[in-house]
Amino acid sequence: MKLWTRFKTAHGRFGFGVLQNDQILEYRGDMFAHPLPTGATIALTAVELLPPCEPTKIVALWNNYHALGAKLGKSAPVHPLFLIKPASSLAGPGETIRRPQAYAGKIVYEGELGIVIGKRATNVSVEAAKDYILGYTIVNDVTAAELIEQDPNFAQWTRAKGCDTFGCIGPVIAQGFDWREGAVVTRLDGVERQNYPLADMIFNPWEQVSRISQDMTLLPGDVIAVGTSIGVGSMKEGATVEVSIEGIGTLTNRMG
Amino acid sequence: MKLWTRFKTAHGRFGFGVLQNDQILEYRGDMFAHPLPTGATIALTAVELLPPCEPTKIVALWNNYHALGAKLGKSAPVHPLFLIKPASSLAGPGETIRRPQAYAGKIVYEGELGIVIGKRATNVSVEAAKDYILGYTIVNDVTAAELIEQDPNFAQWTRAKGCDTFGCIGPVIAQGFDWREGAVVTRLDGVERQNYPLADMIFNPWEQVSRISQDMTLLPGDVIAVGTSIGVGSMKEGATVEVSIEGIGTLTNRMG
Repeated sequence: MKLWTRFKTAHGRFGFGVLQNDQILEYRGDMFAHPLPTGATIALTAVELLPPCEPTKIVALWNNYHALGAKLGKSAPVHPLFLIKPASSLAGPGETIRRPQAYAGKIVYEGELGIVIGKRATNVSVEAAKDYILGYTIVNDVTAAELIEQDPNFAQWTRAKGCDTFGCIGPVIAQGFDWREGAVVTRLDGVERQNYPLADMIFNPWEQVSRISQDMTLLPGDVIAVGTSIGVGSMKEGATVEVSIEGIGTLTNRMG
Repeated sequence: MKLWTRFKTAHGRFGFGVLQNDQILEYRGDMFAHPLPTGATIALTAVELLPPCEPTKIVALWNNYHALGAKLGKSAPVHPLFLIKPASSLAGPGETIRRPQAYAGKIVYEGELGIVIGKRATNVSVEAAKDYILGYTIVNDVTAAELIEQDPNFAQWTRAKGCDTFGCIGPVIAQGFDWREGAVVTRLDGVERQNYPLADMIFNPWEQVSRISQDMTLLPGDVIAVGTSIGVGSMKEGATVEVSIEGIGTLTNRMG
């Protein structure tokens, strides 16, 4: 399994490479088009990790786990249900989650698997979908929960989930990760709040890439946040949320 | 009033400039940061017009006109209601609107004013909002109408409006345009279907930029589609939709 990471050095230089224990083997070129190793090795402690890719959009699913759907009494959808978190919402590993100035309500964490698109995908079949996935990352799909139902006529999913720093992704893109065996574990200030198997997804990653690519073109670096399951909860200022998926790592963000 | 345009020459060169009658006065640099005239003039007939900017997101409003809200029996919202059309949905003037392969239902046009953001906007006041607007364009907010209510639990606004070629914008960005006097006129195959005053907006452009910038950072070139009013209707294959706003021009797209 290859763990791709993007970073910034203490001198402000941007780079990317493959994480190996506490070292990054640097690569050059385009992460999505045959990148080449530079031969250089950089200590993980010497860099700041960035979001592992720069999505033009994060497609975020709702109601994609049987367990959460059953708990909420919602029937399984016939097509992935989604909204878009914009590029401006992106936050990397370790980045502080910021409360929007004009919003005083509840902010929740949602630990999720993220699919990272590897190449331009339009009308892709389920069978071919695997070839369009570079790898997998971890997402904290942060949400200003009280905005969603604020208007009686229009559920404000985009507004609630689109704020700056609400699209936390990282720490790496795991190439070769097998989602079928994985589980998402979310800890709030060290206490486990979510622990659910990825196998409980309603639409699996290949079905998602296929279906969504029939709605809109997915571009290299775009992320699909596959939805969350039981255990979503409120984050207070100062709280730390760690979302872990064995094989990918742990995405840690603190609320400022 | 300055009319900014982006274009591609017959030789495949990209450029931008100011439209003056049937000529483009070419500029260089960054359209959003003190561009400079090159001195060159290019005949409009010699180029293909592109979308006048490259938004990272199109923020598209729903229920933002008193007349349409009244007709639909919807109360006026207390905050702009919006979804995001992704960059992948962008189409320029003259570009063909394509039906998604997997969707056989009704596709509708929605003629709208578009606000083009001129500089990075976060938590901007209503008073200052004007300074963050480069100018105005025209939007055809194309929608796969039957997808919206397909799921009983989740209105699929993003999916219905996010398809490739469903974000038609252009032909230019009009700098100095006064929206208070304007009207949107939409013609389907030459027959007028929409004709409504911009002054009927619930949230005016300055309020929109202010409010939305409190939810998420708006970037140079981002577009806010301010919503549509009465007269939305179905487009069939082969139909031509022209959306006109005096002072900006006419955005023409044909459905392929």
